[in-house]
Amino acid sequence: MLKYEQIAQKINLFIEEGHFQAGDKLPSVETLKEQYQVSKSTVIKALEVLEKRGFIYQARGSGIYVRNKQREGYLNLFSTGGFSDEVVGLEVTNKVLKVEEVTPPESVRQKLKLKDDVSVYLLERIVYVNGDILCYEQSYFNKDIVLFLNESIAEQSIFNYLENHLKVKIGFSDIYFTVDKLNASDANKLELVEGDPCLNYEQVFYTTTGVPFDCSHLLYHYQNAYFYIPSQK
Amino acid sequence: MLKYEQIAQKINLFIEEGHFQAGDKLPSVETLKEQYQVSKSTVIKALEVLEKRGFIYQARGSGIYVRNKQREGYLNLFSTGGFSDEVVGLEVTNKVLKVEEVTPPESVRQKLKLKDDVSVYLLERIVYVNGDILCYEQSYFNKDIVLFLNESIAEQSIFNYLENHLKVKIGFSDIYFTVDKLNASDANKLELVEGDPCLNYEQVFYTTTGVPFDCSHLLYHYQNAYFYIPSQK
Repeated sequence: MLKYEQIAQKINLFIEEGHFQAGDKLPSVETLKEQYQVSKSTVIKALEVLEKRGFIYQARGSGIYVRNKQREGYLNLFSTGGFSDEVVGLEVTNKVLKVEEVTPPESVRQKLKLKDDVSVYLLERIVYVNGDILCYEQSYFNKDIVLFLNESIAEQSIFNYLENHLKVKIGFSDIYFTVDKLNASDANKLELVEGDPCLNYEQVFYTTTGVPFDCSHLLYHYQNAYFYIPSQK
Repeated sequence: MLKYEQIAQKINLFIEEGHFQAGDKLPSVETLKEQYQVSKSTVIKALEVLEKRGFIYQARGSGIYVRNKQREGYLNLFSTGGFSDEVVGLEVTNKVLKVEEVTPPESVRQKLKLKDDVSVYLLERIVYVNGDILCYEQSYFNKDIVLFLNESIAEQSIFNYLENHLKVKIGFSDIYFTVDKLNASDANKLELVEGDPCLNYEQVFYTTTGVPFDCSHLLYHYQNAYFYIPSQK
């Protein structure tokens, strides 16, 4: 684990053990630097991690404040880390329905900025949290970045695989969603009934250097999916 | 308008007129500083504004990248600015159902960190976008921060009023949401039918110094509300 991630964990523990409440002020960067005997830039990187996860808020010229703790089982939609990262404390499993190389539909080709004749990996799977259906996922992967994919990889966390084995640096993503009624086919995938609600969710992931590599379409199960966003002015 | 907001507008225009695509690299901070003849800190603040709105992405040690443009009519859930800010280019109106001083329910009292016997403003209204129902809103306001509220204020943008008249510095907010089926009473408010889908949405807003001042519960109309999040690793 990187130094700043260790410090992030320590500060988080400090918040928990200090019984800080939402809105309470934390010690300054200088004080934290002394407290953990690390450089100022390590403290700043650690605070950025905690800010993205929604644990703290840094007010320009005012200080560092504790936020409400993310409720257990809620997906943090601001911090893109794949399901395993997002659903802290719960067991995430997958049932892979399909992994294959396909010619992508035109809309996907455009979002991944691919040439006409390029094939991509298509993955379809059901994601479970603590054994309950979380969502049906259909993802297209750019093969220039996601060099290889098969069923046994897709049963695990793809983002762990990308970061730790393929050394992909995941940067940012754009999320668009609406609320819809399920059609019969999609309801069947989620073990629900036609006309039941769902969250209809699109996400395009980019590397840190702006290359789109994953174009995903997800349908979330309305009874099992809960969402959290640490928002800012 | 503040200097950095002017520069943010100029950089945004530069992106639009330069026909930058998602993933394209922008000039460095140093170059932008020269281009607009402002201080480095003004450029950095301008870039922060554009990053929160999801226009750009800043990769540590790598550069500044253009993101996909937010689709028109989508609410940006990361950047908390009230409806008028969020639904760029569309007309936002409100029908106020109720503004009154009440004793808050226990759950609201806790979220606003209020003493037992304190009253709050309760606002209920329907928000419209281009004349269509966007959501039903029920908000409780801490009277220490929201010093005054009445029907004519609530018909406009409350956040404009808070920032420009009451000089409230809006800092951050925590958003939690799920997808639900509407009950008969709520369906009636949204001019929908019992059992129709909705986004069931809670948000607590804090000042920059961590004081919670607005505890809101919203039900979004599934056919009229579209959402966007500029997410990061």
